[in-house]
Amino acid sequence: MELKEKTLVKKTILNGNLFNVRKDSVQLVNGDIVTRELIEHPGGACVAAFDENNNVYLVTQYRYGQQRSMVEFPAGKLAPGEDPRDCAKRELMEETGYVAGKLVFIGEFVPTGAYLQERIYMYYADDLTLVGQSLEPDEFLELSCMSFDKLIEKVLIGEITDGKTIAMALKIKALKERNLL
Amino acid sequence: MELKEKTLVKKTILNGNLFNVRKDSVQLVNGDIVTRELIEHPGGACVAAFDENNNVYLVTQYRYGQQRSMVEFPAGKLAPGEDPRDCAKRELMEETGYVAGKLVFIGEFVPTGAYLQERIYMYYADDLTLVGQSLEPDEFLELSCMSFDKLIEKVLIGEITDGKTIAMALKIKALKERNLL
Repeated sequence: MELKEKTLVKKTILNGNLFNVRKDSVQLVNGDIVTRELIEHPGGACVAAFDENNNVYLVTQYRYGQQRSMVEFPAGKLAPGEDPRDCAKRELMEETGYVAGKLVFIGEFVPTGAYLQERIYMYYADDLTLVGQSLEPDEFLELSCMSFDKLIEKVLIGEITDGKTIAMALKIKALKERNLL
Repeated sequence: MELKEKTLVKKTILNGNLFNVRKDSVQLVNGDIVTRELIEHPGGACVAAFDENNNVYLVTQYRYGQQRSMVEFPAGKLAPGEDPRDCAKRELMEETGYVAGKLVFIGEFVPTGAYLQERIYMYYADDLTLVGQSLEPDEFLELSCMSFDKLIEKVLIGEITDGKTIAMALKIKALKERNLL
């Protein structure tokens, strides 16, 4: 079955700071014409950085969308034209202060494909060298370090709820078990 | 460190069909006043349903936000006031045609907490009885059934990119390995 929805008209209805909103006119496979709302967002990169003792670096931030603080792997938005790998290095350095000697792409993560353009590029990192954190003004976060096993426990009991952090922690666990990482 | 951002003024700037957009005035921990953009969304439920041969049901849909078809566990949006568990049952029946004798909540999944209210309640299901699919008009999807091991392979090589599907598949794998599911 052909599932593709054909865009007839693209219309931006909101220009935001963080994202734009479009309301497009779209033709479905049965010929019906409907509207589809879409959030334009450049995407981002996220990094699970391991030290030599199998600890990982995590950041705790207030997430306004969820009205609570959340524990996550360091991540951030792609700058215009930025390569996801460079974004991963930059965010890791800014938020944790570390530069990684080894950085491995482990796949894409789509937060919610129905209405969001955002795509997050996931990375595994190790061989870390401390160069110092450089947060933006108005960026407040707590950096912490936790054993990977403890993080996996927290994921499995549902204490970690950030989607990319759940997916990356468990993907790295499974890849390590198969000696693929 | 106190990380909470205090809402001073809530302002809806777009009423959409699928979501609303707010631009709030917010006070940061250092006293600075900034704006925060936020997508209002009721959240949803997602179900990994297993048959007696360890196969799982998947749906392939065109995801307009990503401009491509994606393979995902059946999921859908909470109706107003709907319990996430009832939403999970309803979406499973509508999209796959099955009713589950066993339905276990396995945690929350936040797609992107910075600017999205959406929260997805994740469920494991088995003991399935066929009652028949009931898709909405203008809902087009392909239902498929795949061995759980094959799904895990597809997740690990990066062929599955839907965030909730990656997280749920790997969480169920890890919970099963510990006999917690």
